[in-house]
Amino acid sequence: MTLPETSRQFMAARTTDHRLADAFVHVDRLRADGFGGILRAPMIASPGLAAAAGCDLHVKLENLQVTGSFKERGAYARMAALSPAERARGVVAASAGNHAQGVARSAAAMGIRARIFMPDGTPMVKIHATRGFGAEVEIAGEDFDAAKALALAEAQATGAVFIHPFDDPVVLAGQGTLAMEMLEDQPDLDVLVFPVGGGGLAAGAGLAARRIKPDIELVGVQADLFPSFANRFLGENRPVGGFTLAEGIAVREPGGLTGDILMDLLDDVLLVDERQIERALNLFISQMRVLPEGAGAAGLAAVLAHPDRFAGRKVGLVLSGGNVDTRLLSSLLLRDLARSNRLARFRIELVDVPGQLSAVSDVISRAGGNVTDVAYHKTFSDLPAKVTYIDISLEAQDANHMDRIRAALRGAGFRAEPAGY
Amino acid sequence: MTLPETSRQFMAARTTDHRLADAFVHVDRLRADGFGGILRAPMIASPGLAAAAGCDLHVKLENLQVTGSFKERGAYARMAALSPAERARGVVAASAGNHAQGVARSAAAMGIRARIFMPDGTPMVKIHATRGFGAEVEIAGEDFDAAKALALAEAQATGAVFIHPFDDPVVLAGQGTLAMEMLEDQPDLDVLVFPVGGGGLAAGAGLAARRIKPDIELVGVQADLFPSFANRFLGENRPVGGFTLAEGIAVREPGGLTGDILMDLLDDVLLVDERQIERALNLFISQMRVLPEGAGAAGLAAVLAHPDRFAGRKVGLVLSGGNVDTRLLSSLLLRDLARSNRLARFRIELVDVPGQLSAVSDVISRAGGNVTDVAYHKTFSDLPAKVTYIDISLEAQDANHMDRIRAALRGAGFRAEPAGY
Repeated sequence: MTLPETSRQFMAARTTDHRLADAFVHVDRLRADGFGGILRAPMIASPGLAAAAGCDLHVKLENLQVTGSFKERGAYARMAALSPAERARGVVAASAGNHAQGVARSAAAMGIRARIFMPDGTPMVKIHATRGFGAEVEIAGEDFDAAKALALAEAQATGAVFIHPFDDPVVLAGQGTLAMEMLEDQPDLDVLVFPVGGGGLAAGAGLAARRIKPDIELVGVQADLFPSFANRFLGENRPVGGFTLAEGIAVREPGGLTGDILMDLLDDVLLVDERQIERALNLFISQMRVLPEGAGAAGLAAVLAHPDRFAGRKVGLVLSGGNVDTRLLSSLLLRDLARSNRLARFRIELVDVPGQLSAVSDVISRAGGNVTDVAYHKTFSDLPAKVTYIDISLEAQDANHMDRIRAALRGAGFRAEPAGY
Repeated sequence: MTLPETSRQFMAARTTDHRLADAFVHVDRLRADGFGGILRAPMIASPGLAAAAGCDLHVKLENLQVTGSFKERGAYARMAALSPAERARGVVAASAGNHAQGVARSAAAMGIRARIFMPDGTPMVKIHATRGFGAEVEIAGEDFDAAKALALAEAQATGAVFIHPFDDPVVLAGQGTLAMEMLEDQPDLDVLVFPVGGGGLAAGAGLAARRIKPDIELVGVQADLFPSFANRFLGENRPVGGFTLAEGIAVREPGGLTGDILMDLLDDVLLVDERQIERALNLFISQMRVLPEGAGAAGLAAVLAHPDRFAGRKVGLVLSGGNVDTRLLSSLLLRDLARSNRLARFRIELVDVPGQLSAVSDVISRAGGNVTDVAYHKTFSDLPAKVTYIDISLEAQDANHMDRIRAALRGAGFRAEPAGY
């Protein structure tokens, strides 16, 4: 199978050499052979999300991949290109998460030794999963760059091949399979929206999409705490850093190869803030009953944050991964309940005599509220000694019901003020 | 399109009339017309779940349906069979959840008026979702049976058609589409496992499966708190009732039609307890990154609980729905972390002098543990007045890591005992 000359020229016009065109030929061959059993993830329309967004949304569910993200596409493509001698020497990689699992799974399938350097603070669920595929994991380095330096040193010392998470033509072409599948399933998509971290997904899938449908619009999304590529694209100089839900795209330096391709390829780069990412994440859970990680929700966050940009269009989103930390997920779910006022905490001033808790509980119970937590505060209050605070957390059916419960408390003489979480 | 005579005989042999055979002919016709745009939910293999279960598992993801469950298949099939006069009179239904949404959505698509009776205590999210599809919702009746009586009275009074959630040949045939798709996608499945509540899914999909593949094995699953059909099938008399995670299959009386069909059709009925359902639910989340409701996890729970029964077979599971309560889900996630010892609470005896919290924290921090909660207990301890308890909740990478942290605390002279949740 060879790539038509027009595609070669298309690729060549975008790089200084033919490495990308060759990489896509390699990937076409792998696809014809079943692409290593990597899931052709379903693309699902969500009327619920579409109504929230005001456009026709189709979501590619890469969270359903065995490793929980699209990253195994690129890792598999790259490792399938290794020579027998290279396979014998093994591979090394640096990753805070999904790339690690992609490399680990492909290595296991190919019988290759994989050593993976993950920075301190990598979510435990990801370390666990990577080891589960049989890779040797070393937790070292304070961030991705430090882990990468260690991986490169290990490659230097042992002759193992370093598998770059994004800045490699074959990895890009591997990620490109995602857009090929999307446009095979829904040829009339108007716009594709990709999260941008290192840029491998957006560059690879973007190239593949334009190769199939030259006039398709391509939009990149970054977390506004990590606008590393956005700064280059928009000619800005925003600060880069912070704690983001979307740690999968929290990359300080865009890739060289991917950055150049994306400068040429993207129509737009949009930034989303943490609240927008959190809202999108909760919408995926409530409307589609699937689990995204923060980076996986960035595309939806951008569509919701820029309704005019996408109004009436047929939009392809990538739920790029679902490896979200369990404890974080649990707290996001509760925050969503609190924000929608189905869970609330009231601080109530009580006289410190017997029967008060019973009286308050009785009002809440008769109003249909469900108490989930109670705490007394006395020592540190600035109230008279015979008066105390009680914090009661409770659950209601919806915001209106919560208001009715609060009104019932007031009606019974208890001043219930919302207390912070 | 007509059903071959053999299928007619197959169906007829299983009922006293040809209503079922006619229903399947009707549904074949609907399918040929696109089945009302109902999602052909993907069936996904999960190597992670397969490893846990010791068999080859394929999961039909009905949680991805717009209404979050398979129920819209049967509701749509039934309502598509209404005559113009019946459509004009509208439909009524009784449901605490998924059937309500299925009826509401189909009614909206067909321009039919739908009045739905939901019992008191129906979660507001389900009421909202049902109203969101345009149905008129009445909250009435203390349980499903009471709501059903009201719906039947309304049907009587107005001439509207009562859409039964399961005990109706056309509803059954509609649920049957699920098995047709499963066997089209994976013809070599050896066993299908279905949750059994009213029995509509198991009877409809079971009939459809046997029609395609006469030797396929069919296994039904019930929650052991609600073994209503299992009692009949196994000739037992276990108590029925209680608080189950799987409220979608918590049915006190099996259907008459469905019960008769299932007696004839099923090879086995397995019971799963609450712990098994909870574990299966958590595995769907961690291994497949999808959200099941309790009933949706029952099939996986049965496969995990009976490994010998399924060893080495190719098993088709139905994740039948994903409408799970947010706060319940949040607490299930944390319980799973605690059970796997990645989250633990230790009670530590401290001398009540400055610097002790700092010393303990330092040991935990150097051992790589992440503190999530701290509580002091002094007043109620039976220790000397200068000694206090501290409860520290912390997160580790895995159970071994938790053991290492505990050993580090002991090594530093702090006796850390596991504290209950």
